Amino acid sequence: MPDLTLFTFDWVPEPPRGFVRDLRVRWALEEAALPYRVASVPFNPRDTTHFAHQPFGQVPWLTDGDLSIFESGAILLHLGQRNPELMPTDPRGRNEAMEWLFAALNSVEMPALPWTMFKFTGSFDGSPAVKFVDDFLKLRLKHMETVLAEREWLAGSFSVADILMADVLRVVDRFEGLTDSPACRAYVARATGRPAFAKARADQMAHFAAADKTR
Amino acid sequence: MPDLTLFTFDWVPEPPRGFVRDLRVRWALEEAALPYRVASVPFNPRDTTHFAHQPFGQVPWLTDGDLSIFESGAILLHLGQRNPELMPTDPRGRNEAMEWLFAALNSVEMPALPWTMFKFTGSFDGSPAVKFVDDFLKLRLKHMETVLAEREWLAGSFSVADILMADVLRVVDRFEGLTDSPACRAYVARATGRPAFAKARADQMAHFAAADKTR
Repeated sequence: MPDLTLFTFDWVPEPPRGFVRDLRVRWALEEAALPYRVASVPFNPRDTTHFAHQPFGQVPWLTDGDLSIFESGAILLHLGQRNPELMPTDPRGRNEAMEWLFAALNSVEMPALPWTMFKFTGSFDGSPAVKFVDDFLKLRLKHMETVLAEREWLAGSFSVADILMADVLRVVDRFEGLTDSPACRAYVARATGRPAFAKARADQMAHFAAADKTR
Repeated sequence: MPDLTLFTFDWVPEPPRGFVRDLRVRWALEEAALPYRVASVPFNPRDTTHFAHQPFGQVPWLTDGDLSIFESGAILLHLGQRNPELMPTDPRGRNEAMEWLFAALNSVEMPALPWTMFKFTGSFDGSPAVKFVDDFLKLRLKHMETVLAEREWLAGSFSVADILMADVLRVVDRFEGLTDSPACRAYVARATGRPAFAKARADQMAHFAAADKTR
């Protein structure tokens, strides 16, 4: 019986709801049908206990017994290595899941996150910096399009790599960044069409909505 | 006896020399004193074999027997999990190394790489996009400064997490981005002062310099 507690903010403003990174962990936990509790920490101010568990003052972190884990990539890898529903167990499949887990965060999210923030904050102008990030993302999407046109999931079967890649790409899709990448778009629809994603998203929305009532 | 081959470009222009990501892998291999070979693939054009091993057309990738691994994070984790010189073996130390390995790539390099490219390409202007990335990086450095003021290495002893974090931060340092972060700067000096880094860097420089002679 696992003793898993997911830590997230007690409240966030409307715009990031449905996109806070605790969703990645909820999604993985739902896919593996692992029982877990959700605990809240103040959005503002962030206290020293928070920084002791997450040195950047971000969320999520997960406790598994007396182990406390931050970084969504590290948490999903931790869960993946313990649950065959979340990662292939043969050496080749496991290696493929590891490669794509890092690719999602370090090759695709690296341009995708600033690109999204430029869109969100209205700073997506004609400046050279915006053009650099836009070209960087388009190049990555071109290669992902080739990969995703040929496979349903990144590592043979659905894995934590897909949770991360789909979560990275769906934010791009939200700002119409996948219009020229039909295979990427179909992949996002396929991944977010899974019942575990719907449950994770609904739970996150309900968590923050409940907080509105007590403010 | 491991059968390790590191794949990198046959040649790159002058500016990125000393910073091509095969250095991360060379550094880890030198730290663990693992024998390995270096193989070259064309910088231009990149062929289908290249994309079969590295779907973004980047370097490095590593073959370990019949396993081929791309993404520097995945390669370093692969090596770390097999070599106690590269990662603590106790659950707590290993967890800490994993957290910081992901933090280097997904929390710090995410703003550091675009920031560096804006500096390098001369597009570090007063635009809102540049300001967003600059503020993003400064916030991360503020938290890293607190962490690094209190410890020599990120996970108790030197690990692959330090290779990645130091490699990310030294590029920022190259463009004078650590002037207000003395603990980060001292950490970069400490890490890059290790003989394994010096050997890895010298080998990369020699590899590309040798290619100049045959062009």
